[in-house]
Amino acid sequence: MAINPTRLRIRLPALAIFLQIAMIILFGVFIRYDENADPILSKEHNLTGERTIQNEFYFRYPSFQDVHVMIFIGFGFLMTFLKRYGFSSVGFNFMLAAFGIQWATLMQGWFEHLGPDGKIRVGVINMINADFCTASVLIAFGAVLGKTTPVQMLFMAIFQVTLFAVNEFIILHPLHCNDAGGSMTIHTFGCYFGLAVSRVLYRPGLKEGHPKNGSVYHSDLFAMIGTLYLWMYWPSFNSAISVTGADQHRAAINTYYTLAACVVVTVAMSSLLDKRGRLDMVHIQNATLAGGVAMGTAGEMMITAYGALIVGFITGIVSTLGFKYLTPFMASKLKIQDTCGIHNLHGMPGIIGGITGAITAATAPTSGTYGERLTDTFSVLTKHPERLLGGFQMSGTLVAIAMGIVGGTVVGEFCCRAPKTHPVPINECATSTESSPNTAV
Amino acid sequence: MAINPTRLRIRLPALAIFLQIAMIILFGVFIRYDENADPILSKEHNLTGERTIQNEFYFRYPSFQDVHVMIFIGFGFLMTFLKRYGFSSVGFNFMLAAFGIQWATLMQGWFEHLGPDGKIRVGVINMINADFCTASVLIAFGAVLGKTTPVQMLFMAIFQVTLFAVNEFIILHPLHCNDAGGSMTIHTFGCYFGLAVSRVLYRPGLKEGHPKNGSVYHSDLFAMIGTLYLWMYWPSFNSAISVTGADQHRAAINTYYTLAACVVVTVAMSSLLDKRGRLDMVHIQNATLAGGVAMGTAGEMMITAYGALIVGFITGIVSTLGFKYLTPFMASKLKIQDTCGIHNLHGMPGIIGGITGAITAATAPTSGTYGERLTDTFSVLTKHPERLLGGFQMSGTLVAIAMGIVGGTVVGEFCCRAPKTHPVPINECATSTESSPNTAV
Amino acid sequence: MAINPTRLRIRLPALAIFLQIAMIILFGVFIRYDENADPILSKEHNLTGERTIQNEFYFRYPSFQDVHVMIFIGFGFLMTFLKRYGFSSVGFNFMLAAFGIQWATLMQGWFEHLGPDGKIRVGVINMINADFCTASVLIAFGAVLGKTTPVQMLFMAIFQVTLFAVNEFIILHPLHCNDAGGSMTIHTFGCYFGLAVSRVLYRPGLKEGHPKNGSVYHSDLFAMIGTLYLWMYWPSFNSAISVTGADQHRAAINTYYTLAACVVVTVAMSSLLDKRGRLDMVHIQNATLAGGVAMGTAGEMMITAYGALIVGFITGIVSTLGFKYLTPFMASKLKIQDTCGIHNLHGMPGIIGGITGAITAATAPTSGTYGERLTDTFSVLTKHPERLLGGFQMSGTLVAIAMGIVGGTVVGEFCCRAPKTHPVPINECATSTESSPNTAV
Repeated sequence: MAINPTRLRIRLPALAIFLQIAMIILFGVFIRYDENADPILSKEHNLTGERTIQNEFYFRYPSFQDVHVMIFIGFGFLMTFLKRYGFSSVGFNFMLAAFGIQWATLMQGWFEHLGPDGKIRVGVINMINADFCTASVLIAFGAVLGKTTPVQMLFMAIFQVTLFAVNEFIILHPLHCNDAGGSMTIHTFGCYFGLAVSRVLYRPGLKEGHPKNGSVYHSDLFAMIGTLYLWMYWPSFNSAISVTGADQHRAAINTYYTLAACVVVTVAMSSLLDKRGRLDMVHIQNATLAGGVAMGTAGEMMITAYGALIVGFITGIVSTLGFKYLTPFMASKLKIQDTCGIHNLHGMPGIIGGITGAITAATAPTSGTYGERLTDTFSVLTKHPERLLGGFQMSGTLVAIAMGIVGGTVVGEFCCRAPKTHPVPINECATSTESSPNTAV
Repeated sequence: MAINPTRLRIRLPALAIFLQIAMIILFGVFIRYDENADPILSKEHNLTGERTIQNEFYFRYPSFQDVHVMIFIGFGFLMTFLKRYGFSSVGFNFMLAAFGIQWATLMQGWFEHLGPDGKIRVGVINMINADFCTASVLIAFGAVLGKTTPVQMLFMAIFQVTLFAVNEFIILHPLHCNDAGGSMTIHTFGCYFGLAVSRVLYRPGLKEGHPKNGSVYHSDLFAMIGTLYLWMYWPSFNSAISVTGADQHRAAINTYYTLAACVVVTVAMSSLLDKRGRLDMVHIQNATLAGGVAMGTAGEMMITAYGALIVGFITGIVSTLGFKYLTPFMASKLKIQDTCGIHNLHGMPGIIGGITGAITAATAPTSGTYGERLTDTFSVLTKHPERLLGGFQMSGTLVAIAMGIVGGTVVGEFCCRAPKTHPVPINECATSTESSPNTAV
Repeated sequence: MAINPTRLRIRLPALAIFLQIAMIILFGVFIRYDENADPILSKEHNLTGERTIQNEFYFRYPSFQDVHVMIFIGFGFLMTFLKRYGFSSVGFNFMLAAFGIQWATLMQGWFEHLGPDGKIRVGVINMINADFCTASVLIAFGAVLGKTTPVQMLFMAIFQVTLFAVNEFIILHPLHCNDAGGSMTIHTFGCYFGLAVSRVLYRPGLKEGHPKNGSVYHSDLFAMIGTLYLWMYWPSFNSAISVTGADQHRAAINTYYTLAACVVVTVAMSSLLDKRGRLDMVHIQNATLAGGVAMGTAGEMMITAYGALIVGFITGIVSTLGFKYLTPFMASKLKIQDTCGIHNLHGMPGIIGGITGAITAATAPTSGTYGERLTDTFSVLTKHPERLLGGFQMSGTLVAIAMGIVGGTVVGEFCCRAPKTHPVPINECATSTESSPNTAV
């Protein structure tokens, strides 16, 4: 075996325990409760003397729980369509996500939430953002699934979370972009980061990660559980950190309708692309979600319900065609093996989302549809009333792509390639450490 | 094959794309954000100047998400108990539901939410109602499962959603009935519509849609996921659109207890009806939910917790006996093949719910249990203080049954029968377009 | 067969119907809606005249739904890892839980919510508490899974719910302990009650309840669904009945981070304990959750985020070692067969949680971190400002252990042992009444 079990047995636990102890120390130094959780800072009573519900917690927590389900059940089970994707992989991913949310809390905190006292104040908002960052990591894994060892994936996660925080900071602060649903920061960055790593790991002999007939009936039903939870809760994903009230409501409505249109178009395209008119489950499991990705930036804006339908319509077509034609092309010509087809579900839809957001934002100041609430949605205009929103939004997408490709290439070169001496064939990576012979169905 | 694949390959995508483009145009003309989502219309600050949570969105959204899960995971997986119910069916149903929520938004909007400016104002309430309408469509499909082609099902959905909106309008507006959980509008109407279509599609040679030994262990566990999500979230279903505050709270409490009683009785009956005292999974998967259906009208009323238990008790017995004796009788004598037994889960319990609501409403004005809040629950009394609530509630159920039977027969005759020339045998309909041979487990 | 089918067919339905009728009568006499659900008692408008959301319902209901999913999907599917654990068992557990929430509403009501008018006022809080009590019952079943008949389990549930209410009353009222997440009342009590019953039912010939190779790929994926829902929603479990506002928020934050640390450590330990560095799915499915149990008491306190990580770290190690070494030891030496390993998931972590809570509470009054809000979290200090919180918290854990062991032994002796004449071998208990031969995969 390419992986020496004993080595894995020592290295993985040692690294994991070390990292967890580091988290404890760093949390002790930097993390404190925010004003909605700290008894002294919190304002628990409103002017009428009643215990108040104005606590941010009650605006955000239900959406947080929906997002939490998307990360662990949604992404987790979406990957079970792969027969090879066995127990240990489930366990390792669970660990990577669990480590990711701790590390993300620190990195995002240092970049965005560091108080004057040098402390990071955490609350439900930080939990949502940490889950978002972890989503980006899981998206990237979708491209390298089955090509890396657990230790490599752990290193990859450490660096990707760091770069995610840097990228997010640039997009949200210097550029002042709106990106509540993360079309740029989560999907576009995560996708191109993963593809860049996958490009580095390319080996001619390696057979396609997603075997055409590799799924069985029940595997596909499990994957549908993942798909449906992502699809159902996406309105919460895109609205979770929007400004409370109308903006949050709007993000939910737009995402709800864009996803509906996306499903109808995906089924139509899938049937059309099959010579016998049958559906390809890979399309149903993935392309139906592309609309949610594409509504990540514009969701909270006044894109209107029919605008949302149009976005879902276009994204469904692009994503389905991507699975049919682009993924094989990338594997054969560009030497990029995209195991789960993340470029079709997160990459292209993410860019569409960025462009949609740029267009919607560009027309906002003159549209008059926001009235005096314009600055609720586009807070940057309070400071820079002349800001050309469209251009800055567009640049955000370009930054995400660039950060993803450069970052992924560097990280891939320096942590995932090793051991250079004997590259790890697919059937000895994600499946090399199964806990029982039954795992291969 | 009865279905010419090429025909399906052309007709289904063509129809779906056409419908989606029609949705985009109609949304553009008619749909606007409501006062809780539109920045100009919304009142974002309360009298004390704080950003307020009085936004309807925060009262309804968590319940909406629960309902959303019931529609797509609940109904979706409940049907997976059928081995024949393969990939493509899952995909087609996904498409039908996704189209359904768009079309329902328009139809319900035209009938109930059309503003003076000729626009439909949409928000979380419309999303909940659109999901409710889709539930009714999925209920009806339960009776014809495996007997229609995807194109036929799409036509059936178009007409059923239209009739649903008409029926709902008659019951809620001219008749001013209370039906927050849809015992009449969703379950009774949906069930009899589906049975009427199934009656039209009856063919002597057709073998029972739900093969006695047709399920396997894992299929039944998947179905239990559907059952449990419907069971757990039903309190949200029955309270989602009730008047906020005590009424919404009461609907959740009553449904919670009625479902608990229904489970105990269903298990007892199922064991009693088996000569060796074993449980029939069909009963556990379906009859346990009948209590929720029966609490759809009276849930928000002062039926009291023990009243809720009694309703659950009776419904569990009726539903279980229905599966054991009535369904086979209907198939053999009445020529109505009820694939999923919707008459036992939605039909009879829906009628019980209508009667329960009528009785509870009839006693309301004189009971004194509502005090001055009587008109919160029964708003009609503000306009017609002398209204005999019981009689009008009862008439609502009769309207739902009549609309369902007549509508279903007409729709069945004119869209589902074609192609008349060569009727489609069961194994060439819902399963004719599987994407892989594995689908039959 | 050990069970005479006819006897089961008569006795189980007869008992279930009798109990349900008793519930109806008792609910009729004792249960009324509380001030948040009753139209006359409820205050629906705030001082500014707006319909108010200050209704407790909106603070608690989303968390209630998460807890509800944990009880029925979480515990329900966590047990499906057992091949033997077939259809009927799922159905019987469903019935036991459904009966449990009704009986718990009465017992907890009599002990804690009985009004001056001799009525129990129920609302969302009672629903959460009833689900909590049911959780304790399902935990205990985890130890005797497959060793008792349905009728025995029903009797066991009747007595355990009663003892749960007594134990809870002693801990919350005379001792005035904080235990919002139930480390003592739910997990510690439930675990030792179950182990005591299991000890009574010990028979040398009985083979281990959890066969090493007893699970298959899909069974383990179903179990992972249970695990993940418990893991994801545990922050809601520990915060559901905390004081609204900062306390509730804090309980969610602490549980979120403690569970993350627990996963990382569990994976590390599991890999370390396998001679080839592989993961044991039993660890992933169970030990990853131990952190949530251990944060049940201190979650709402100012334990700080890094304190939460430390608790997760320690619990993950203890729980994993328990599965590896303690469970086999208990089975062979102490004659306690722990089918699901509840001692590792609920017993030891529950005690850790009790100790953690005691320490955190002991330091509270002097820590100054609560400021004037100290009595929000520790209401007892309003009445007894000199109360030594730590000592009383610690005594609560001891009470829970004692009540569990004594109660479980007595209940086991008097209801579960019968029929003494011919003890029921494992393969004729929980699996004796399968509804189809397919159930053994």
